[in-house]
Amino acid sequence: MKDDVFYMELAIANAKAMKGQTSPNPLVGAVIVQQGEIVGMGAHMKAGEPHAEIHALQMAREKAKGAHLYVTLEPCSHYGKTGPCTEAIIKSGVKRVVIATQDPNPLVAGKGMTMLKQAGIEVDEGICKQEADRLNVPFFHFIQSDFPYVILKSAISLDGKIATADLESKWITGTEARKEVQQLRQEADAVITGVETIIQDDAGLIVKDSNMTQPIRVILDSTLRIPLHAKCLTDRRAETIICISRMYDQKKYELLIEKGHQVYITSGEERTDIHDVLRMLKERSVMSVLVEAGGSVSASFLEASLVNEAVIYMAPLLIGGKNAPTFFEGDGVKKLKEAIRPADVEYSMVGKDFKMTLKIQ
Amino acid sequence: MKDDVFYMELAIANAKAMKGQTSPNPLVGAVIVQQGEIVGMGAHMKAGEPHAEIHALQMAREKAKGAHLYVTLEPCSHYGKTGPCTEAIIKSGVKRVVIATQDPNPLVAGKGMTMLKQAGIEVDEGICKQEADRLNVPFFHFIQSDFPYVILKSAISLDGKIATADLESKWITGTEARKEVQQLRQEADAVITGVETIIQDDAGLIVKDSNMTQPIRVILDSTLRIPLHAKCLTDRRAETIICISRMYDQKKYELLIEKGHQVYITSGEERTDIHDVLRMLKERSVMSVLVEAGGSVSASFLEASLVNEAVIYMAPLLIGGKNAPTFFEGDGVKKLKEAIRPADVEYSMVGKDFKMTLKIQ
Repeated sequence: MKDDVFYMELAIANAKAMKGQTSPNPLVGAVIVQQGEIVGMGAHMKAGEPHAEIHALQMAREKAKGAHLYVTLEPCSHYGKTGPCTEAIIKSGVKRVVIATQDPNPLVAGKGMTMLKQAGIEVDEGICKQEADRLNVPFFHFIQSDFPYVILKSAISLDGKIATADLESKWITGTEARKEVQQLRQEADAVITGVETIIQDDAGLIVKDSNMTQPIRVILDSTLRIPLHAKCLTDRRAETIICISRMYDQKKYELLIEKGHQVYITSGEERTDIHDVLRMLKERSVMSVLVEAGGSVSASFLEASLVNEAVIYMAPLLIGGKNAPTFFEGDGVKKLKEAIRPADVEYSMVGKDFKMTLKIQ
Repeated sequence: MKDDVFYMELAIANAKAMKGQTSPNPLVGAVIVQQGEIVGMGAHMKAGEPHAEIHALQMAREKAKGAHLYVTLEPCSHYGKTGPCTEAIIKSGVKRVVIATQDPNPLVAGKGMTMLKQAGIEVDEGICKQEADRLNVPFFHFIQSDFPYVILKSAISLDGKIATADLESKWITGTEARKEVQQLRQEADAVITGVETIIQDDAGLIVKDSNMTQPIRVILDSTLRIPLHAKCLTDRRAETIICISRMYDQKKYELLIEKGHQVYITSGEERTDIHDVLRMLKERSVMSVLVEAGGSVSASFLEASLVNEAVIYMAPLLIGGKNAPTFFEGDGVKKLKEAIRPADVEYSMVGKDFKMTLKIQ
């Protein structure tokens, strides 16, 4: 039976397919149904381009009259880069609008629904709400916080190591998990790492085999130790921002600027201030960042309560070693009662590896 | 439908219920069925006491004549502490014997089945074999190796720590996982730990709320640092063996012996030789041991390839800290290709904790 849930799930699937290309806008999908038949569908594809409802209405044309419109997020009622969707919906003559979830944006919240109702349109809300909310967790965070949504990623052994005592880390996890990490990178607007990762691995931090816009590479490098020949400075495959403390090397700074590189001086006296870094990224419309770094950088984000979500791939092997690094180093907590307790942990298999998704806040 | 599998599963369930009380004998269950009705059942309950088949035959009495006997392990054909079961089975007049798995003991293997067949009894083999084999993994290992079956247990955080940097470890996991650990202890014939755990936690290593025989406590203590007032030396609730290297304190040694404590001198020059310890335990008919120790002792067993199985409980929290210990310390491997790769890893939930069972060899 094709019911409200069926059509809404289709709209959600279409929205989901746009992951990584709509930032800083939310993922939204829409479906239009006329007497049980789908006559229009769409999704928001790119910031500045039409919203999901508009695509669907344009596809349905006159068949929208008297139809049911399913949309995963409350239609907007304000003038942004595009006209308000509510206006277009009212004009189209749809009879009923089914909404999965309200827009948390204070400029919109509830207003869109009210306008539709005032125009005599039947409005139902809450169909597949949980799934729809989950879709836009980073967006909802972005518009309500001073920082982008931060996802921390790590690959560990069963005994919690991210490398051997000799620092060999390629590869702990299998191909399937590594492919998923490429996908995580693609979905992020920026990737943050520490200069140590650049020095050790000369990491390119590029999404392989992708023609899509690459995430911005952000290198935390307090004293400007980055090698000038580092791949992320020379390959020109993605934007790179080097974030430094006040203790940087003036000469190297000038050299980098001269060569056209972006260097961002944070307020940190000895260490790069990561709050500043996140604020700068938010101002640049970076909605979500992926932290792919060693145990010290990861610890600084975790200890500052800046991580929203952690994705840990655990490979079925034991590395051992008192000196082998773990993904959460730093000082750690002193007392167990101070431990970070994620609100939720999801477990799943990815190839032969085990994936843990920690919703921290 | 009550079929062969149904009856064999009952026999297996009865065998399983005896976990922790049959060592160094295997877990065995038996069921006797006469015209679809169960007329006898039994399990091997304690070394030196009747085997499962004998209990079941005694219960069935004359109803065994013409019946089907289900037994989880091939009946013995040799004279041990009790007479051979095959003889009793033949005498009873059962028509058919269904066996889950062969006895790997060279004194028995296949002989029991042959004797039954020669007596004109119908014999079927292999029903629920996998389940039956799994039941006696420690026993099968014990009779084929110089060492007991070694299970390593640890409780870790999501980032692989077994304690905070301040060494607080009580409690990382929840009540359900800790209850399971009590069960693991109960099922083991000995518990091995390092003297550090005794010094830090004054661990009693006792199965709580149990009237059953307590596992032997084995303390690895190279130089005899154990405090004389340690709970495991004074509570007299279970046997304790202190295992030392050649570098021990002679005076303390004499004092301990004088007080009636057991001290076992291994061949290790500076560190307690764990191969010696395991051999000594095997000679004392210890079938399985549980290693419940810190990262160094666990590493010595893992690095010497002496661990058959590792049971890791992972709690949903993050502890952090470069100096916080992990369960596998020591030197660890240098290269990833040298990592220990378990043959199998099972994942399950225990309360809010995540359980990983690693079959290492």
